[in-house]
Parts: sequence; structure tokens; C-alpha cells
Amino acid sequence: MDMTELFATRSSRMRASEIRELLKLLDQPDIVSFAGGIPDPALFPHEAFREAYGRVLSPGTSNQALQYQVSEGYRPLRQWLAAEMGKLGVACDESNIFITSGSQQGLDYLGKLFLSPGDTALVTWPTYLGALQAFNAYEPRYDRLTPVGGNTTPDAYRAAAAVNGGRVKFTYLVPDFANPTGKTLDEAARLGVLDLARDLDCAVIEDAAYRALRYEGRDVPPILALDCQRSGGIEATRTIYCGSFSKILAPGLRVGWICAAKPLVEKLVLAKQASDLHSPSINQMAILDVAERSYDTQVERLKTAYGARRDALLAALEAHMPAGVTWSRPEGGMFVWVTLPDGVDAAALLARSVSEARVAFVPGGAFHADGSGTNTMRLSFTLADERAVRDGIPRLGALLERTLG
Amino acid sequence: MDMTELFATRSSRMRASEIRELLKLLDQPDIVSFAGGIPDPALFPHEAFREAYGRVLSPGTSNQALQYQVSEGYRPLRQWLAAEMGKLGVACDESNIFITSGSQQGLDYLGKLFLSPGDTALVTWPTYLGALQAFNAYEPRYDRLTPVGGNTTPDAYRAAAAVNGGRVKFTYLVPDFANPTGKTLDEAARLGVLDLARDLDCAVIEDAAYRALRYEGRDVPPILALDCQRSGGIEATRTIYCGSFSKILAPGLRVGWICAAKPLVEKLVLAKQASDLHSPSINQMAILDVAERSYDTQVERLKTAYGARRDALLAALEAHMPAGVTWSRPEGGMFVWVTLPDGVDAAALLARSVSEARVAFVPGGAFHADGSGTNTMRLSFTLADERAVRDGIPRLGALLERTLG
Repeated sequence: MDMTELFATRSSRMRASEIRELLKLLDQPDIVSFAGGIPDPALFPHEAFREAYGRVLSPGTSNQALQYQVSEGYRPLRQWLAAEMGKLGVACDESNIFITSGSQQGLDYLGKLFLSPGDTALVTWPTYLGALQAFNAYEPRYDRLTPVGGNTTPDAYRAAAAVNGGRVKFTYLVPDFANPTGKTLDEAARLGVLDLARDLDCAVIEDAAYRALRYEGRDVPPILALDCQRSGGIEATRTIYCGSFSKILAPGLRVGWICAAKPLVEKLVLAKQASDLHSPSINQMAILDVAERSYDTQVERLKTAYGARRDALLAALEAHMPAGVTWSRPEGGMFVWVTLPDGVDAAALLARSVSEARVAFVPGGAFHADGSGTNTMRLSFTLADERAVRDGIPRLGALLERTLG
Repeated sequence: MDMTELFATRSSRMRASEIRELLKLLDQPDIVSFAGGIPDPALFPHEAFREAYGRVLSPGTSNQALQYQVSEGYRPLRQWLAAEMGKLGVACDESNIFITSGSQQGLDYLGKLFLSPGDTALVTWPTYLGALQAFNAYEPRYDRLTPVGGNTTPDAYRAAAAVNGGRVKFTYLVPDFANPTGKTLDEAARLGVLDLARDLDCAVIEDAAYRALRYEGRDVPPILALDCQRSGGIEATRTIYCGSFSKILAPGLRVGWICAAKPLVEKLVLAKQASDLHSPSINQMAILDVAERSYDTQVERLKTAYGARRDALLAALEAHMPAGVTWSRPEGGMFVWVTLPDGVDAAALLARSVSEARVAFVPGGAFHADGSGTNTMRLSFTLADERAVRDGIPRLGALLERTLG
């Protein structure tokens, strides 16, 4: 039977997630974990969801909630999202909105649409691990996008892609409070990405999963909004905006969206029809119910809570990290990115950190398409309450002191 | 910008669903539709779902319902399904169960795992349209499986696959009350499929979406159960059983499952992690709540209601179809398959049927991988209440009389 062999061929580049293994550590009560990039369940709008499912399953709407749905998604939710995108500077209507089962599914479909084996995807070093996993199934080559500090020339990207027998099909990036670095691109860098994409005649995939979670500073327009300004309207854009309710309302419902030009939405609808028919009707209706009543309130609540945790983590790092260790200062999102001195292997350190310091984090190597970045680590602060920061960071600092000293 | 062109290359064989267009007709109130292969929403266990979501969102479980979940699915649901599979003759545990977003998603993942462009999939002529759509994305060649009446020899299948530059990777079939034909394979035919798959060293994908809906006759063991008997246990099987809650409880939650040997489940977990992380936590918990309390009751309720509709439809066909028209007599499921005389084009007939007789059905050509079967049509009886059958079938019969006469 050839199953094992065959799948090995198709996905030999799909590496098992280190995060998955790390999350298992959370079951050990004395481990302080900065590993899991997940929202704090204590902050979910529990009561709002309880009421929403009750309303959605009332006689007037229960048939629709439990029945098949069109592949593009529940129309009133798409209308609500089109209005939200309008507030971000993206004038559009519901025909530009496509509902996905979390923004992760959007990345999978975009990989399927764009990538033939050997094609090139431009990503930052490091980038979101889940994006690499989604794209890997379609066997691309990766090249390095450096939106700050200057990209390679378009000709060089093009030539390198051709050597590999394919073309540059898209550039993927997380412009706001990136996973894993926490960094945000300014407007000039975003325009630079659009310039590059125009030169390469490729798409831009804008992963906006964390966008609403800004704790300081001014919003930067989405790349899609800048593209609309330049191009004269969404139907002339090359940017594909991937949004998510997972970080604001709840990930367990698996509801995200894509906002893009209509011809792309139509192709996504065909892909979804062939893959899972549609995202669950009932969850789309419940998300809309909660969003209409309390999206903005919920965003403010999360900003207050996560903003305070970010502040506490940054202060503790300042107090306890030894010389030679540096870290990002994110204006929002969920992550602080720590860089250790050259030569320190964060993956090896993790094993010692868990056994000696009882502190978990994600080693940064996994986020690099080329396997570099072994001296980096990601700390998530969304689950890091006062006790975790007070107990964990000094222990991590002491371990690093022993390791580096 | 190359989006349109690129996607055309990747999915030129992905045809837009005719069903989709047909479903739009349901909005016209005077149309009697036998087209949509969907369950009757009046028979959904509304109250059970209302109570289930209330319980799942109560303080003890709400965190888990709204949070991320492991990719293989909610463990208690997998345990319940393993016990159900045991009742069907498949001894297994939860490590053999993988939760999908409807059984459609299972087909997509299996296509992704098994098929490289040019590989061969064996399917019946006709077969489930959604399976062809799922597999088409991976650019296979199709060859014809004829489980009743004799397949081609394994050597002939192998040689034809090799000419196309690939191998036979799996055979896909709906052994119980098939979509679209309503037909059921007996045990001998199922064993024949296993023989063929062993000779070809390929997998068997058993789509069991309708299995629980039997209105007469005796259950035939699932192919997976026969495979377990022959092979000595599930870990030695080559059969992949795809189940669904959509036809019994509700499709709007998008919960299905795969039951197979552990190494395959492990590969599916990786595929799911890269594609949508996991199926919605809350829906898996709600489905389990409803299934534990009322799965068997709900099956009995549907058998009574749908069984009566099948009887009424068969009686009306007997009374009103002109000579030269034949149809299947399904022992269960949702569909009756009608064969018109050679040369009658059911797709052309549909246009006249809608305008002249105000009756809709699905022309059978779409279900044939090779475009044959143009003189066939699928009638679904799940939404066909007494009035629909009483009004619609005589009008369809009269139209056919005029067409054939």
C-alpha cells in the first residue's frame, strides 16, 4: 500500500509544527508558558455568544442556521464586513468579501490558486509558520522579502524564480504586529511592497490577523487601502486582504474573511465549493450577531488587557535579560521577538528552559523558510498574566545569564 | 496581473456546479423542485441543538468551545464515533478517527494526499459530483469502476494509468444508496472492489454519507468492515471510510469524519493543520451533545419521513412516466435515478421542464467523469412532500410524453 510513500512525496517539505509539541507543555501546571499564540479565553465574550446562539437557533432563523449555505458565505455577514473594510479605506461591497474557516483557510486556498510546484513565493525571514505550512503543500520555492532595508531588484527575483522553473506568484506578509516579530511596516514600506509587486506582476497577500489590536501609535492604512488609492478602486487591485475574527471574538468558531477584487473572490468560491462547500452557517450567523452588538467594545477590552500585559513583559525583559539579548517593542498584537547572541541555539535552549527554568517559548528557527534564525525566540504575552511575567521572566533571564556567561 | 490566467491553468477541469445554478430556482415559489440534494430543514432536531449550544456555552465548557482545538478533533466526539464504527463491524479507537468539516473536506484532503497530476482515480460512471470537483483540483485522470458487472482487469487499469504518466492511486465509491443513482452494492461487489484494490495496491475511499438512511432491506457491511475482517484489523486496511452528520443531524455545522488506519489519520492531521487548523470546536461539542442524546431517535424519524416520500415518488413515477423511461428503486438515501431513452438530452429537457412544467431536477451528465449519461436525471425526494409529488410528477410525465411521443 502506497499511502505513506505517496504522501511523503507530496509533502516532504511540510514539517510537523514545533508549536504543537510545545502546546502540550501547557498541561504541566508549573510551566510558565510564553509559547502558545492563542487568545486568553477569560476575555472571550462568553455571554454574548450564549445569547447569539440562542437567537440564531430561534424559530425564525434556525432552519437557515442548520442548513447548507452558499460557498461565498452568509450575505449579511459579508455586508457587515464590507462596511468594516470601508472604515479602513477600502471601498467595496459584499461581492468583494469571501468567508473562510479562519484566515488560515484563506492562505491554503491562495496557495492552491497561485502556486504550481517550483513557483516562487516571497516571504519575510521570519514569517508566520502557518503560512509556510499552508503554502508548502503546493511545493513552492521561497525567496526573501525585505520590505524594510531594501528588497533585491525585481530582475534578480525574476531571474532566481526562472532558474527554479517557475515565476514569482505572490508576496505574503503580516504588516501589522507581525507573527512572530511583533513589528509593523510603515506606509513607505507598504508602498514599496506594492511597487515590487507591480514590477513582478504578482499578487500581494496581506495577512491582517492582528490589525485591530493596536496598543499605541497611529494606524497605518492596510496595503489593500493603499492599493485602492493608487489603482483607482478595488477591482483594479492586486492585494488580497485576509482578516480573522479569531483574535478578537473567538477562534473556536473558525470564521475569517478575504477582501479582494471580484474575479479573485469568484475563483475562491469555486475552490471552497470543491473543498468544504461552505463555512458553518450557524457560526457565521452567530459571529455577525456578536460583531454587530459588541465588536468595538470587545476590541477596546482586549486592548486594555493585552496592552497591560505587553507593558509588563517589556518591563520584565528590561529588568532581567542579560547583556547581548535584544527584543522587539511591538505597538500591538500578541508577540515579542527576542534575539540572542549569534551562535546560541534557541531550540536547544528550550529543552533546558523547560527542565531547569520551567519556562516555555517558541524557538524562532521554525519561522524561517531557510532554516536560519536559530538564535531567536518568540514570546507571546496574551496568556502571560502578572504572575507568569513575575515568575517566568526572571527565571528565563537567569538561565540566559548562565548560558551566555 | 496573472491571477486569472494562473488559476485557469490550475483548475481548468473544475467545472462550475450545475446544482448551484439549479438551486437558485428554488426561490421561485411555483417551481416544484426535485433538484437539491439537501435534507428537509423541518426535520432538523432544532430543540436539541438549541439545548446543546446552551450547554456547550455554559461556564464549565465555554472556554473550550470558543478556543482553538487540536487538528484531529474533539476527543470525546472521536471516542463516540469510534464506538459507532464498532457497531458497524469496525473495531477501532479514537486514534482511527479524524474530524472533517463535512465529508466533502475529507474528499479534498484525500485528493491532496494521493493525487499528483496525471495519476488515475477509479470512479463509477456516474458518481458524486462533489467528489469529482474535489479531486479535479489535483488534476487526475479518471478511469471507470464497474463494481457490478465486472471491472477491467487490474493489468488493463495499470497499463492505462501508466500511459497517462501516473498510477492508480485510489478507487472512490458511494456503496450505500449512491449519489446520484440511489443504488447499493451487495457484499460480493464490495469484496470485488477490495480484490481489485489489493491487486492495484491502491486505497479504497468509501463515501458513507447516506449509510444510516435505509428504508427497507438488510444492512450490508461497510467496505471498511469487510477489509478489517480480511486483513485482521483496521491497522492493516486500505479502506478510508468517510462519514457525515450532514444528512442525519444538520449540514450547517459542517461536521464529518474519516475512519482509517492510524498512519493515514496522522497524515490527515498534518494536512488539516496546514489548511484550516481544525474544525470548529463549538460545533464538534454541540454535535456530540445532540448525537449522544438523540442520534438513534433522529435516524428513526428520518427513516419514517423520507421512506414515505420515496414510496410516494416511486408510486407516482409508476403512474405517470411514459414507456421507455426507467428508474432506480433505492433502498435508502435521497435519490431516484431516471434513465430516458437514448438520445434524449436531459440538460435540454431541464430548460423546457422549468419553463413548461415548472419542475426542476438535476441532469445526469454532470455526474459522469467522461461527459456521458446525458439521457439521465436525478430526482431527490427528501424535500418532495405529498403536494410536490402529486403536482410535479404528472407534469413531468406529461412533458416527457410530449417529448418522446
